[in-house]
Parts: sequence; C-alpha cells; structure tokens
Amino acid sequence: MPVLLVVVDGLSDRPVDGKTPLSVANKPNFDRLAEMGINGIMDTIAPGIRPGSDTSHLALLGYDPYRYYSGRGPIEAAGVGIEVKPGDIAFRINFATVEGEGKIFDKVVVDRRAGRIENTEELIEAIRNKVRLPVEFLIEKGTGHRAAIVFRGENLSEKVSDTDPKAVGKKVKKCTALSEEEGAKRLAEIVNEFMQKAHEVLDEHPLNKERADKGLPKANALLLRGAGKMPHVPSFEERFGLKLCVITATALIKGVGKIVGADVVTPEGATGNKNTDLEAKFRAAKNALKSHDVILLHIKATDELGHDGDFDGKRKFIEKLDERISTLFDLNFSETCLIVTADHSTPVKVKDHTADPVPVIIVHEDVRRDEVESFSEFEAYKGGLCRIRGMDLLNIAFDLLNIAKKFGA
Amino acid sequence: MPVLLVVVDGLSDRPVDGKTPLSVANKPNFDRLAEMGINGIMDTIAPGIRPGSDTSHLALLGYDPYRYYSGRGPIEAAGVGIEVKPGDIAFRINFATVEGEGKIFDKVVVDRRAGRIENTEELIEAIRNKVRLPVEFLIEKGTGHRAAIVFRGENLSEKVSDTDPKAVGKKVKKCTALSEEEGAKRLAEIVNEFMQKAHEVLDEHPLNKERADKGLPKANALLLRGAGKMPHVPSFEERFGLKLCVITATALIKGVGKIVGADVVTPEGATGNKNTDLEAKFRAAKNALKSHDVILLHIKATDELGHDGDFDGKRKFIEKLDERISTLFDLNFSETCLIVTADHSTPVKVKDHTADPVPVIIVHEDVRRDEVESFSEFEAYKGGLCRIRGMDLLNIAFDLLNIAKKFGA
Repeated sequence: MPVLLVVVDGLSDRPVDGKTPLSVANKPNFDRLAEMGINGIMDTIAPGIRPGSDTSHLALLGYDPYRYYSGRGPIEAAGVGIEVKPGDIAFRINFATVEGEGKIFDKVVVDRRAGRIENTEELIEAIRNKVRLPVEFLIEKGTGHRAAIVFRGENLSEKVSDTDPKAVGKKVKKCTALSEEEGAKRLAEIVNEFMQKAHEVLDEHPLNKERADKGLPKANALLLRGAGKMPHVPSFEERFGLKLCVITATALIKGVGKIVGADVVTPEGATGNKNTDLEAKFRAAKNALKSHDVILLHIKATDELGHDGDFDGKRKFIEKLDERISTLFDLNFSETCLIVTADHSTPVKVKDHTADPVPVIIVHEDVRRDEVESFSEFEAYKGGLCRIRGMDLLNIAFDLLNIAKKFGA
Repeated sequence: MPVLLVVVDGLSDRPVDGKTPLSVANKPNFDRLAEMGINGIMDTIAPGIRPGSDTSHLALLGYDPYRYYSGRGPIEAAGVGIEVKPGDIAFRINFATVEGEGKIFDKVVVDRRAGRIENTEELIEAIRNKVRLPVEFLIEKGTGHRAAIVFRGENLSEKVSDTDPKAVGKKVKKCTALSEEEGAKRLAEIVNEFMQKAHEVLDEHPLNKERADKGLPKANALLLRGAGKMPHVPSFEERFGLKLCVITATALIKGVGKIVGADVVTPEGATGNKNTDLEAKFRAAKNALKSHDVILLHIKATDELGHDGDFDGKRKFIEKLDERISTLFDLNFSETCLIVTADHSTPVKVKDHTADPVPVIIVHEDVRRDEVESFSEFEAYKGGLCRIRGMDLLNIAFDLLNIAKKFGA
C-alpha cells in the first residue's frame, strides 16, 4: 500500500542559456524512473502562484493552504516542538542585542541575531520561570538565535504588528493592534508586557554578564514577528485514515508535519544542507515504509543552492541525489507508489521561489506509462499526467492503490 | 447547433501488460474520429476522485456534483419515474422475505430479494391504496425486486438509518435518527410506521398466498436504504436555454436525466447490457438531433464488462460499438458538435470505477485539430485539449458552436 513521496525542495529551474541544473545533470536513475512511470508537470498551489515551502507542502499533503495556512508563526512554533492548539497565537523570535536607557521600547537594536548566539537554552528556561503574563505562553528554542513563542488565551487575535524593527540602529517596536477586534488590542498589550519582562530577565542573566565580559553581544531582547493564529487542522489520519511520516531536517517542514499530525523523523546526519547524509535519509524512508502508509521524504539542499544562485552546485547535488535514488529500484511497485517531485522551483537566476511548474513522476505497476524517458523541466510536460495540481497528487496515488472511495454510485 | 455527447460508460482502463481493451481493439471508426477532432484526457470530477456514474453524468451535464448530488436515493427514485421534488426524502427499496412472529422489527430477513420477484405491480398498488401515513408518500417499481419511495412533508431530514440489515438471518432494522434534527426523528417514526403497515398489507396479499402455495418466498417486506434529500436542481433548459435529451436504458442515468429535466428516451431493444440494440440507440440519437439541442447517448455495456473483469469481452463490445459509430460520419460537423468520451474508467483489473482520466474527442469543423490519430488511453493525452474536467466539457462545445455568452465586455 504505501506511498513514498520524495520532495526535492526547489529542484526545478528556469533556463539559463536553454539549460537547467536538472536538464544538464547526469542522472541515469531519475531518468530510469521517468521511463518507468507516468510523467507530468505540477503547480503545487496554482499556475503563477509562487509557493512557500510550507504552503506547497500543505498542498502536497492534500491540505488546501488557503484554508489551513495561517502564516509562518504557527508552523515554525510546531516545528520547534511546541504543541500548538487551535486559537493559539504564534510568533517567530530572534534573540537580539539592544542598547540604551529606559524601557525596552526606548532601546535600539544593535544586533538582530545577538552575535548568532547558539546556546539559548538557559535563557529560555529563565524566561519560562520568571516571566508571568495574564495568559499562558509557551516558548521553545529553534536553530541558532531563533525561537518561537505561543500565547494561549481566550479570543486573542493575531492581527497585531511585529516588535522586530527588521534593521539595526532602530528602536524596538511596540506591538500594536492592526484591527478593531478587542482580542488584537489585548494581545498587543500582552506582547508588550512580555517584551519588557523578558528583557529584564535576559539583561540580568548570568550568561549575558559572561558574554559582556567576553566582549560578545548580550542576547538581551527577543524580537517577535509573523503572528499567526493556529486554525483547526484535522490530522492526516483523521482525514484519510492513513499514517503519515515526514522525514526532514528542516524546521519549517517539521512544522508542517507536526501540524497535520505526522510522525516527524530527522535521521542522524540529516542537516537540511548539501552535506546532509542522504544515505541515512533514504534508509529512514525505507524503514518508514514498513510502519507508515504515506512517507514524505524531504530533501532540502537543492533549494538552498537555488537561493545561492549556484547552478553548478545544484547540478552536482542532483547528481549525488541521483546515486542515492537508485536504492529505490528494489521497491515492489505492485504495492508501493513512488512519487518524485519538487515543492516549487528555485531558479538560480532568480535566487528565490517561482511558480514555474515542477516535474512529477509517479511510478506504480498500474500507471499508464508514457513516452517520457528523461526527468527534466523540458520533458515532463509531454507525459501522460499533463498538468496537475499539488492538491491532486495524493488523491491520484490513493486511486492507483485502490484505497480511494467512490463518490456516488 | 446540436451537441451529440456519446458517453461510453466505464470505457477506459488501466494497462494489463501495457495494453487496454480500448488500445488493442480494432476500431477504425473511433480512430478516424480522433484524427478528425481535438483530443485530450478528462477528469470527470477531479484528478484522483473516483466517480460514480451518477456524479460523473451530473458533471458532464454541467452540474457540480458537490452541489447537486444528494445520494443515490433521489436519483434512483427519479429513474423509476417518481417526480421527485426539492425537500423530498427518497430511499431505494428491495422487496424481501421475512419470517417470524410479532411486528416487522421482530422478524428475520430470510431472502433480501424475495426470490428475485419480478411482478411487484399489484403489491405496490396495494401499498398505495391501503397504507396511510402522516405524510404523503410515492412508491414506484424498479427492475426486478427493486423499487423506490419518496416521503413528502415539511422539514423532513434525510439523516436517518437504513431498515435493510444487508444480510440474511438478521432482524429487520428500525429506522433511527442520525442527527438531533426534529425532522430526522419525525421521519424515522414515519418510516417505521410505513415498514409495519406495508408488511401487514404485503403479508396478507393474495399474490403472496399464491407464492407461498407454490413454495416461493413471500415478498412480504420492504427494506429501505440510501436516504437522500432532493436538492433544488434548476433544469437544463433553465440554466442553458437548451433542450436536453438523454438516451439510456440504465435506471441511474435515467434518474440523472429526469433530475435535470431532460427528455429521457429508452429505445425499444436498448437493454443496458452487451446485447443491447446499438442500432436502435444510434437511430434514436440521430432522431433527437432534430428535436433537441444537446443529446446524451449513454452506452452501458463497457462498464459491466469492466466490473466483470472481462478484458476480451470489453474489447469485443468496443469493436461492435465502433461499427455503429461509423453511422455518425454523415453528420454535418459545421453544425453539429460530436463528443465521444466516458464517464469514468472501469479497469478490468480493478472491477470497479477508478479515477484514471478518460479519453475525450471533440469533433467539429472549428476545432484546432491535433496530431492524435488513435483513440486510446495512451494517445489521448497528447492531444490539443491536454487535461480538462467534466464540468468544462459542454462549455467547450457551446463555445465552439458560438452560443456561449461572453463573461465581461
């Protein structure tokens, strides 16, 4: 039964002199999959809509992002391990360095990442223990100087502004209500109270005294941004009666997985960059095939290399991935449905996500094989799938596996 | 002006050793139509969504099944000739044999089809004449042991359970409300009253005494299932200003036709199986071209042969149909738009409907002809239509015929 969905982040491209990293890569195994399967192109959200990795992954898992996406806050918060509940308001956090006299909002940001501090565990623990607010809050460390926070209370509204001024040399911003809702005004007051109290706890913390003594910037303020309200999201198992496993090293994709109730796995050695242990990730995916019904294997580095504008690096990583993908040829395709695709294009020329459709291969014994023999942006559209959307993808797999329900008689 | 829409039920397939009944059939006339027209693949509902024949036919006629489909009850009831009105609650019925003492719900079902009784006319007439309920009801015979009933009253809710235990050796089930709505409790009471009264009428009926004397199972109970509430469905003529004719021998498709206000025609000799008189059906279709604007010609046997898993039978029937389709070559394609397609795939390997897209050909003088020269699952996707949806089909025809209205200025 299982579906193995391999999502190569930002894999596809726009042509540079008529070529893309994927089209010029030496990738015999991807090509063999294209030959074995049915091919097409896919708009993960809709034609011309530039996807984030969060919204596109929601769509690939069958969750309409226009209904279930609520901003990056709740997904990041879920990604760092906070159990976000419907109605919670979540923000992304940077540890930062502020200087000046008076209250937090009189002070100026001198480093938005507090010298890229890593060891924020004690600081976060101190905030948990010493800050008291009119509502409950949950705060967790992210990677490096990052963290996330959730405010939990009745009828709070996410329509409030950031406290991150997004530039050094500027004062910390007051959180203000962006709507007339009572819950927005109330949350803004709570956030501002939190900003001041957290600053007091941090500024006096022994770790920051130590840092100051060593000439390191104090991690003495938290900058909040990207407020989002967690909607009610039915779990994947509730919706489809199937067990989902998400294999990723990327916080944002972990968050998407958590939000839809997946088991999220990060194998040792998986880093989310080009030095990741691909072998460990593919091994984890093959293991998950024994315990789960749908496995999303997320590979991140292609996106990073696209953001870096590194044509050759992207090509090389695709070639490295191609070697690894050969380990999937021993799957039993009368039982397993293998899908290889991307969540969006990240063209090296644009250095950001674009809406150029992604190539998709579906391999299963029962597909109507087409004449495509190569995996690339220039061949995929000739395949038997023509052009589909991200939200259709798992439905197509479930139909192939004969677990789809009939609508009507 | 007219559109002739030939729907070959369950025509398309999944490959068996790379072949399908359609791809291997000798079908020069279908191929010639493919060559003359524009080709594509079509999701009658949406990619990966397995259609029923009812929901897909609604979509093919431009009626969104998510809006207008209300379960099988109302469509079956319309199919057997009941004029179902918005708000009516319809059930499918089996004549059955029950045994035991006491009231209907104390008795056990010993034959769910009452020995496959055919001549239920008198029994139904007796029920009509002798059963009195707090609301109006309409009951009509279907094929064999089947019938349908409609309860008509203010604010009844369809959220009630079946009385059919769906197995022999079990007691007849009481109808119970499946929601808190007052109308569900009320309908359940009415259904239970009907069950008892119908049983009394049937058990004492002379025809059943005769059957008992001959050693045949008495048709002494009615088992109800598949409650659905008829929604408001604007007629085809109201919506499009066009007269629709549906030619079919299949009760479910008759029902779809009735529900959208079509003239439903079943030519003599049309049976809905592989021995149907195809000549009579095509003759009826060509006649209807003179009196109607849109003609849906439904051919059923391919679906049955798919459900039977009969690859060769399906191929042979396609070849028989191919001979008949040659009679359409004398249509004037500067006036008439001919569409040949299916309502869903019924792969012989699956023996049920699947969501694999169906091939579609549109023939008209003004289409942009493509390079497809053969009608099959492996060629259609290369055509100029790419991949469309069932709801789009008539709109495309109306546009070709220049009767589409402009949206905007």
